[in-house]
Amino acid sequence: MRKYRLMAPGPTPVPEKVLLKMADTIIHHRTPQFQAVLKDVNIKLKKLFQTKNPVFVFASSGTGAMEASVVNLVSRGDKVIVVKGGKFGERFAEISSAYGVEVVDCDVEWGKSVDPEVVSELLKENPDVKAVYSTLCETSTGVVNDIKAIAKVVSATDAVLVVDAISGLSADELKTDEWGVDVVVCGSQKGLMLPPGLAFLSLSRKAQKLVESSSLPKYYFDLKAALKAHAKDDTPYTPAVSLIMGLNTVLDMLLEEGLDNVLKRHAKLANATREAVKAMGLELFSEKPSNAVTAVKVPEGVDGGALAKKMRDEQGVTIAGGQAALKGKIFRLAHLGYMDEYDTIGALAGIEIVLSQLGFDVRLGKGVGKAQELFK
Amino acid sequence: MRKYRLMAPGPTPVPEKVLLKMADTIIHHRTPQFQAVLKDVNIKLKKLFQTKNPVFVFASSGTGAMEASVVNLVSRGDKVIVVKGGKFGERFAEISSAYGVEVVDCDVEWGKSVDPEVVSELLKENPDVKAVYSTLCETSTGVVNDIKAIAKVVSATDAVLVVDAISGLSADELKTDEWGVDVVVCGSQKGLMLPPGLAFLSLSRKAQKLVESSSLPKYYFDLKAALKAHAKDDTPYTPAVSLIMGLNTVLDMLLEEGLDNVLKRHAKLANATREAVKAMGLELFSEKPSNAVTAVKVPEGVDGGALAKKMRDEQGVTIAGGQAALKGKIFRLAHLGYMDEYDTIGALAGIEIVLSQLGFDVRLGKGVGKAQELFK
Repeated sequence: MRKYRLMAPGPTPVPEKVLLKMADTIIHHRTPQFQAVLKDVNIKLKKLFQTKNPVFVFASSGTGAMEASVVNLVSRGDKVIVVKGGKFGERFAEISSAYGVEVVDCDVEWGKSVDPEVVSELLKENPDVKAVYSTLCETSTGVVNDIKAIAKVVSATDAVLVVDAISGLSADELKTDEWGVDVVVCGSQKGLMLPPGLAFLSLSRKAQKLVESSSLPKYYFDLKAALKAHAKDDTPYTPAVSLIMGLNTVLDMLLEEGLDNVLKRHAKLANATREAVKAMGLELFSEKPSNAVTAVKVPEGVDGGALAKKMRDEQGVTIAGGQAALKGKIFRLAHLGYMDEYDTIGALAGIEIVLSQLGFDVRLGKGVGKAQELFK
Repeated sequence: MRKYRLMAPGPTPVPEKVLLKMADTIIHHRTPQFQAVLKDVNIKLKKLFQTKNPVFVFASSGTGAMEASVVNLVSRGDKVIVVKGGKFGERFAEISSAYGVEVVDCDVEWGKSVDPEVVSELLKENPDVKAVYSTLCETSTGVVNDIKAIAKVVSATDAVLVVDAISGLSADELKTDEWGVDVVVCGSQKGLMLPPGLAFLSLSRKAQKLVESSSLPKYYFDLKAALKAHAKDDTPYTPAVSLIMGLNTVLDMLLEEGLDNVLKRHAKLANATREAVKAMGLELFSEKPSNAVTAVKVPEGVDGGALAKKMRDEQGVTIAGGQAALKGKIFRLAHLGYMDEYDTIGALAGIEIVLSQLGFDVRLGKGVGKAQELFK
């Protein structure tokens, strides 16, 4: 027997009681019973997203909500700034380009976080920019961006700030309204402890004005239709009923734990992981590491592909390798959602075993011991 | 105790073993384990859709796949014919208009099915039409369209035929390749016996050529990306893992039963329902009734809203009322998916009880008896 351990940055493990909730009888979505659930969900989502504005739920993966944040805010030929420091930052640029939106690249070396001063300069050089797009946690590099500082810069202009918090929400601090973040995009299969299939988008008043003037074509992801339905605790199209029933349960779990405690839990697991891998003699990849996922450089002489594969196929622990240019060069361990100290210790123990199998000189228990110290 | 009975045309009841399959441990989607599932699913979907062409799976509701069938096939200013005989036919026109596609209306009175000759005439008058859109079963009216005859007309031209079989697939006959249907769109929460959250789209070679030339903007629903991923049994964006695990199980169930038997089952339930309501003294709304859902006129003097509400809140049987202009004028009973004779008999018994409560003169057991005769 070897249990299946999911330690990649999404999908993340789903609590058993949430799995069972989603296995309950499917109810019809156009009924007072389901509307009561949606009403509940809408209130709780605002708390989780730290906003007084509506948070929409789409039946789609996170990319769908990213697309919604482009097609509803700008028009063909409009200019946007995109912070590109990894695969997901680049996705915003791809979506914008697909719709004929002009992208001002804010290039960031993978592994580094964006300097808010650079965003400020770009905004000064391009005063006609309508929106700035950035990730909170860039999942592909494990970097967290300083959204507070970026929001300070952007909110002083006419532009809106859109943050991809798909992997970051509930792991890295994000005070949406307090900081002045206009749009937050999220997905279900990360810190929200659900299977993939739901995407979220919060919308500030400032962003709602752009929605009114945006002329890009859209239908399924049309926020005007979403706003109209949301006001009646409804959805424009058939919602993913079972996932929303699960969502209601995870929101209860997260709010009961308390958002501060949820953030502290992620911080604790992430910190212990960082210290543990350093104790093993490894090096962090991210200059400014996120608490959602830790990216670690594969040490010289070790086959990064073999590391991830042996972890999954022999140890039963699914971690993530590097994506695109980082393939084989880093591995990533998540701290997202339904994970605790002993999940982390298990994964670290597996990493030590596989590293030593691959010829890396590490004393078994070195990193694990460090994590134990920090957890005790 | 009053059980929850879902007899509306979607969402439909989900088999218990499918609910439990979806409650299993979530696995990572970029692994050989999940790719093996996708490979299986892709083969079985072709059988269910009666096509040799790829069938894509989206994390979205059916409307997402409808949008995909517009934005990938035509370009701004192109002309399409839309068969509008109900809410869902009209949705194709709404999506097309949202993207600047010129719609040639093929208006059909709600409750009637389209005359293929009219489609033929419209194609002659508009030889530059790129695509024809029609529903198989128009869920809002319970009408089935003669797709075989329409396909004969359309396949003789350069235009492609797109069929919304969201509620019709597996209930009404649809021989995709044999009839020459280019694109079939479907959703998970109808005949496929799954919760809502997945959408499907099959694509003929003729339609693939249009995909190459279409210049409408798209990203999440981009079929070029879907085609590329599909060839490797992968998906462009994170798939709805748990729903796809359930999909694999329902496809096994449907293929084991045999597509012919699945169709016969729906036909049997639909026929018994039609005869039973006629025996109660009611009148069918649809000129050419679908085997997915039966639409029945609310008899004079009966409050249609109260009928559906009492069925749901007092009898525990969720049926559907009429939509848009048909509100209060019809009620709809589904035969879709995980339903058998005794579900149908239960619903008919409830209808008789509530109709008599609402002052309609019906002998209890009259319609039920008729159904029993046809089932015995």
